Amino acid sequence: MSFAIGVDLGGTNLRIAAIDESGRLLEKVTTGTQVKLGRDAVIAEMATVISQVSAKFKAGSKLIGVGIGVPGIIDKRTGMLRESPNLPGWDDYPVRDEIEKRLQTAVVLENDANAAAFGEGWLGAAKGLDNVCMITLGTGVGGGIVQNGRVWHGMSGMAGEVGHVTIDPNGPRCNCGNFGCAEVFASATAIVRMAREAIAKGDAPELARIAGSSDVEFSARTVHNLALQGDTAAVQVFNKVGWALGILIADLVNVLNLDMYVIGGGAAGSWQSFAPALFDELAKRSMVYAATAPDQVLGVSTGASAELRPLESGKRTIVTRALLGSDAGLYGAARLPMAAMEREAHAHVPAAEAI
Amino acid sequence: MSFAIGVDLGGTNLRIAAIDESGRLLEKVTTGTQVKLGRDAVIAEMATVISQVSAKFKAGSKLIGVGIGVPGIIDKRTGMLRESPNLPGWDDYPVRDEIEKRLQTAVVLENDANAAAFGEGWLGAAKGLDNVCMITLGTGVGGGIVQNGRVWHGMSGMAGEVGHVTIDPNGPRCNCGNFGCAEVFASATAIVRMAREAIAKGDAPELARIAGSSDVEFSARTVHNLALQGDTAAVQVFNKVGWALGILIADLVNVLNLDMYVIGGGAAGSWQSFAPALFDELAKRSMVYAATAPDQVLGVSTGASAELRPLESGKRTIVTRALLGSDAGLYGAARLPMAAMEREAHAHVPAAEAI
Repeated sequence: MSFAIGVDLGGTNLRIAAIDESGRLLEKVTTGTQVKLGRDAVIAEMATVISQVSAKFKAGSKLIGVGIGVPGIIDKRTGMLRESPNLPGWDDYPVRDEIEKRLQTAVVLENDANAAAFGEGWLGAAKGLDNVCMITLGTGVGGGIVQNGRVWHGMSGMAGEVGHVTIDPNGPRCNCGNFGCAEVFASATAIVRMAREAIAKGDAPELARIAGSSDVEFSARTVHNLALQGDTAAVQVFNKVGWALGILIADLVNVLNLDMYVIGGGAAGSWQSFAPALFDELAKRSMVYAATAPDQVLGVSTGASAELRPLESGKRTIVTRALLGSDAGLYGAARLPMAAMEREAHAHVPAAEAI
Repeated sequence: MSFAIGVDLGGTNLRIAAIDESGRLLEKVTTGTQVKLGRDAVIAEMATVISQVSAKFKAGSKLIGVGIGVPGIIDKRTGMLRESPNLPGWDDYPVRDEIEKRLQTAVVLENDANAAAFGEGWLGAAKGLDNVCMITLGTGVGGGIVQNGRVWHGMSGMAGEVGHVTIDPNGPRCNCGNFGCAEVFASATAIVRMAREAIAKGDAPELARIAGSSDVEFSARTVHNLALQGDTAAVQVFNKVGWALGILIADLVNVLNLDMYVIGGGAAGSWQSFAPALFDELAKRSMVYAATAPDQVLGVSTGASAELRPLESGKRTIVTRALLGSDAGLYGAARLPMAAMEREAHAHVPAAEAI
């Protein structure tokens, strides 16, 4: 059994895993990315850990290659990181070539949200499906689109920015410069902001009490916990999250008509709080969804709708939560060199263009 | 030189053309579609005209096949028209097989907006580009997406419904059931409705005068002519059209990052009235567009921005008007069997799956 190395290079953590061709995790190493030590130190650490991890398994099996997921805009052709808000000083840096040079093995570079979409398609909620959009709810809202089993990168590697689809043209300003993006309603950051807005209005006594306590970190999770207890203000915050995601997915269904839309990222843990509003809005706003929705959208409140898929795939539009959690990007990254190798074997195209 | 037959089967007109492989129009026949005579009469007329037209050229050259563009949802696999609001009584009718049976030649069925996108990509504004979205402004707002040179149909043939992307969640109700779709702001129907709303408010004396005159048909064209003369109320109507199209294209750029977005259909004739607002909104609302826009968006008011393309293609996001007018769908339909034949020759895949 051959294996590959998956790397998830975040602004906070650097995670490296050896994963075999069946998707079995052989080993995972998590280190804090010493971003402040600078690019060269991070690259050196990455190369060292990759070498150490792969050395353990190289005796018994073949290393297929290394896949690296990075937050930011990458150039698939050159393997360069063009721009990354979370990795200052890395702009236009040839990540792929630097790692290839150090390790003498094939490296595939990918945007982290695309890698997560690829991972969920390999082993997670979208397993076996070729046409999937993944929506990642974290500090921001990211996305990745897989069509015909391949990540859709677009003309300049910038496709899949679903977090910046306009939901309400008069909504709050987003970091991207637009107003009313999905990100300002559905990210973990937005959940906290909307909760604080409710507190400021005097409409949210319980949220105010917790926000005022120095014992508890006031996070999207805190708001979710209150919503689970039925707190009106907290419930309204998640109704807004669901409303925005419903409009976003309605737009995506109308434009792309994919098999599945998978919601992942940290704030996807609040699925049961936002899913009812999401499905309400989606059914109202997309005739394509209405024509292709499962007869019964089961498991909305439990996240079990993924179980519908095997029966319905190819005929029904499934919206469900991700299954791999924060490991989706790591699995997806490891899968990249495997898929490149398979395509090369089948089609004799250069591996670098095969994904 | 071989040729193909393109058919544009509308709710009002049936148009049939013989077009050679270089894109030269050999002959075009336009007949009123006798929809009220029923499906079988229309199919019989279509078969007769196709036979007559192709008989003229069959002596000197080879008929490659027939491509048919129809308004509605089609099933590519079975060649059936599944549903069409403009062709009552045609639901689940095997258009492809019926025409193939009568004419003994290969037939390819396609949605009309997709056929128009394919036509503009072959001979029009998007010539030579593989990744294009066409937005058609007519009675409604339709769309077609071409990726890697092929129409993207989606899971159930419903992709490309860009007219039903939500622009303003609190906007007017659309025929599709949603509120604030692109279609309720940017179709010819919407232009007339918005003009009548301005009249009802008492804000539009010139529009009111023309609407009250029995000599002139009050159409989107009428409103456009007034806007050209600087009439404030008419200008505001087209500012709203441009605003909605700017948001729509910003969404599409953020999600798909295609090379080009082509605006066609009858109301695209008002390009110079809505384009300034469109480009303003687009630049504000899409960071991906801002990063890839031409250094100078030339020709906004003249539609000449298409001339930028050869220089910029693959690096810049171009938004421009269609060049083939109402013939885009006819050319695209004729191109369908040609492309299927080419793919079959190259890849030995069945022609029906090759588009």
